[in-house]
Amino acid sequence: MDEHVQAWGADDIRKLDKSYRRNLINCLSGFKSACLLGSQSLSGVNNLALFSQVFHVGANPPLMGVLFRPQVVPRHSLENVRANRFFTLNHVHQDIYPQAHQTSARYDADESEFDAVGLEAEMLPGFSAPFVKEAHIKIGLIAKEFHTILANQTQLVVGEVVSLSIPSKAVGEDGFVYLDRLNTVTISGLDRYHKTEALERLPYAKK
Amino acid sequence: MDEHVQAWGADDIRKLDKSYRRNLINCLSGFKSACLLGSQSLSGVNNLALFSQVFHVGANPPLMGVLFRPQVVPRHSLENVRANRFFTLNHVHQDIYPQAHQTSARYDADESEFDAVGLEAEMLPGFSAPFVKEAHIKIGLIAKEFHTILANQTQLVVGEVVSLSIPSKAVGEDGFVYLDRLNTVTISGLDRYHKTEALERLPYAKK
Repeated sequence: MDEHVQAWGADDIRKLDKSYRRNLINCLSGFKSACLLGSQSLSGVNNLALFSQVFHVGANPPLMGVLFRPQVVPRHSLENVRANRFFTLNHVHQDIYPQAHQTSARYDADESEFDAVGLEAEMLPGFSAPFVKEAHIKIGLIAKEFHTILANQTQLVVGEVVSLSIPSKAVGEDGFVYLDRLNTVTISGLDRYHKTEALERLPYAKK
Repeated sequence: MDEHVQAWGADDIRKLDKSYRRNLINCLSGFKSACLLGSQSLSGVNNLALFSQVFHVGANPPLMGVLFRPQVVPRHSLENVRANRFFTLNHVHQDIYPQAHQTSARYDADESEFDAVGLEAEMLPGFSAPFVKEAHIKIGLIAKEFHTILANQTQLVVGEVVSLSIPSKAVGEDGFVYLDRLNTVTISGLDRYHKTEALERLPYAKK
């Protein structure tokens, strides 16, 4: 047994202190996306919430997935997305990550996180969910599928990208988006924010 | 219209060149996890494949999700996980990311990517999937749920963490794992690798 390595089996994990386990397990998925999810209630209140479980599902049709934790109460974002299907994902960058983090506080249903944390809502005609004006990469989606993870009632929402706005300086000739040119951040665990530095872009792997 | 911003609507995205769209859409989910997924066929051939759609599903029980793209043929990893349920996730770090990337080449079912790219398989007793010896963070999982994304037949596998090994120097007193102490990398799009630098860890957000 290497003393420089900490190892846990299934029983060890089960017996961990709740807070310790939450920190530990939340770090296992590696570096994560940092996105502000904008939604709107049927009564017109704009909601904004930080999500790190955001992932690519497919390019054609253009699909993204978001996991909604059911145990987080209130869960205004999920209710809004279920009700009106429109939502936005806005990449968090270095100038707005403290405000993004602050959206996690438990605001009431009739309070807009935009006002509470000091970000500005930006609306597009015909799209009933708010974008974040201060964000650089702004994605508009329509929810297409809802799946329930049976083991813990987590909700997976798959949305189709129907609107996209990215600063030109970050878009390569081949469509690649250079996130670091926009100071996009990444999250580890529940609460640690990182900037990135490119190592390299590798060519398509051949045998 | 701001000339410094590039904008696309649903029709614009649909009409994009296939390769351009693949690059563009793959970048929208922000920074992604870089994990090597180890699996084993029923005939005992070890398989290793790079996955960036890896995410946290829950801490109690400890659950992680992995998306398997169905259009990637051959899809030995998914077949193996379906057949024997065991799989591993091994975080990619700066010393092994070129080898990790190379696992994406189309090796035959009877070829082990471990040998082909020059990484070593590490087996644990009673666990029929290989870990990556050179990785620092090694996670053993058992597949619990399979979901199909109807829009494009992508497969979501939810696995329970049953084994965990992390260098002690990266584990904080509260269970937080400091990924940058292990030079863990993150991926953007299909093929760009980044190291990270911590900005800060923010406290639990209160209203």
